[in-house]
Amino acid sequence: MNILDNIRIVLVEPIHGGNIGSVCRAMNNNDLTDLAIVNPRPTTDWDDARKLACNAKEQLDARKEYATLAEAVAGCTVVAGTSARTGFYRDTAHPPREFAPIALESATNHKIALVFGREDKGLFNEELALCTHILQIPSSERYTSLNLSHAVMVCGYELFTAAGIFQASEEKADEADSALRERMFSTWREMMIETEFTHDQKLEHMMMGLRRIFSRGKLTVPDCKILMGLAKQSLWVSSQWKKAQNHE
Amino acid sequence: MNILDNIRIVLVEPIHGGNIGSVCRAMNNNDLTDLAIVNPRPTTDWDDARKLACNAKEQLDARKEYATLAEAVAGCTVVAGTSARTGFYRDTAHPPREFAPIALESATNHKIALVFGREDKGLFNEELALCTHILQIPSSERYTSLNLSHAVMVCGYELFTAAGIFQASEEKADEADSALRERMFSTWREMMIETEFTHDQKLEHMMMGLRRIFSRGKLTVPDCKILMGLAKQSLWVSSQWKKAQNHE
Repeated sequence: MNILDNIRIVLVEPIHGGNIGSVCRAMNNNDLTDLAIVNPRPTTDWDDARKLACNAKEQLDARKEYATLAEAVAGCTVVAGTSARTGFYRDTAHPPREFAPIALESATNHKIALVFGREDKGLFNEELALCTHILQIPSSERYTSLNLSHAVMVCGYELFTAAGIFQASEEKADEADSALRERMFSTWREMMIETEFTHDQKLEHMMMGLRRIFSRGKLTVPDCKILMGLAKQSLWVSSQWKKAQNHE
Repeated sequence: MNILDNIRIVLVEPIHGGNIGSVCRAMNNNDLTDLAIVNPRPTTDWDDARKLACNAKEQLDARKEYATLAEAVAGCTVVAGTSARTGFYRDTAHPPREFAPIALESATNHKIALVFGREDKGLFNEELALCTHILQIPSSERYTSLNLSHAVMVCGYELFTAAGIFQASEEKADEADSALRERMFSTWREMMIETEFTHDQKLEHMMMGLRRIFSRGKLTVPDCKILMGLAKQSLWVSSQWKKAQNHE
């Protein structure tokens, strides 16, 4: 069982079906599987929800529904409520990045919950009272109110990242060693002479410039081969040009 | 001028007006102000865009439009393209958290761009070729395709967080010092005796348990006052009870 399966995403009285669907998609992107909805509204547009869930229709269909928040989180140890406002119970808020390791530690052995309020009114104080932690997503003073699915996305992203599952795509080609690099540089040096690009006094200065340019990132074996091939072709063109001159 | 104003969000041929509006809202949440759209589609539902932009209608109206990506990023030093796929030009991708300090360093003095592709087809290879960096947002192997506004949200959130503008709400009340804590604990000790909650042998053991419970987080001055008041009230009730017993 994946540790992220122990994290329940709880939406309290969400208004827009589209947001519920977008939440499912964000959950799917972050390996979260457990969705609970508290007191679903009869006006919810479930067609919209299915449309915006995209590849996460399974999450949407597997949702649990509860009459109250207390019931939705009854089996959870850590219960974290999200809030954009401050004051009252809402001081000492954790940013989600700081909260993620706390959440994962409990989720190793227990169900935990992340609770998201209504689009228009958020969570009420009596709902925040059920929470062990308050989460505040970093946002501009200009506008602190996040779209519901954006809030789930940021929290889910922080949990997924902290779980350490993801590996960014890495360069698969082998890194060039010094011997290959030097063969490449000596071909370029020869090219600069044969094409009469620079005169002797400037040659070594130019070479240092080229070494700087090509050392800013790691050169791979195919990189060196491209660069060396290009220089060799230029050398061949130079030799043809010189032959042509001799025939004149 | 805010450093984040130097970061241009570029959407290439976005399909859904709703997504464009949601992107504006996500930008507003993260203090980003510069939106460019490449080759806007005549079919875009701009009413939907305005609706989902919420408080970010200004960003939406201030958008710039360009015929090609090359024109949209012409003035930018760093140009980062987002991609869910790997392979071809797409190896050596940066997760947005690793990219954020690179972006901010350049954005101190130059315009930079974050480029997001079409909802269905992403960025084409000839568009990625214009990019100095490829960004890959951590996501589940199960489903790597993010909603357009979710992708902007995660990247914007990482840039906003790295810019270090945000401060989570902190406890405003003063922290209790040892003298106040000890006055509180001695009142509780007295309460345990007077309410006959525990007998002498267990008293110090109970006190250690209470000290552990109340030391898990920082106690503030008002916290100590609530706890001390509660114990004092209990002491008062005990004394009334004993008086009543004496009168029997």
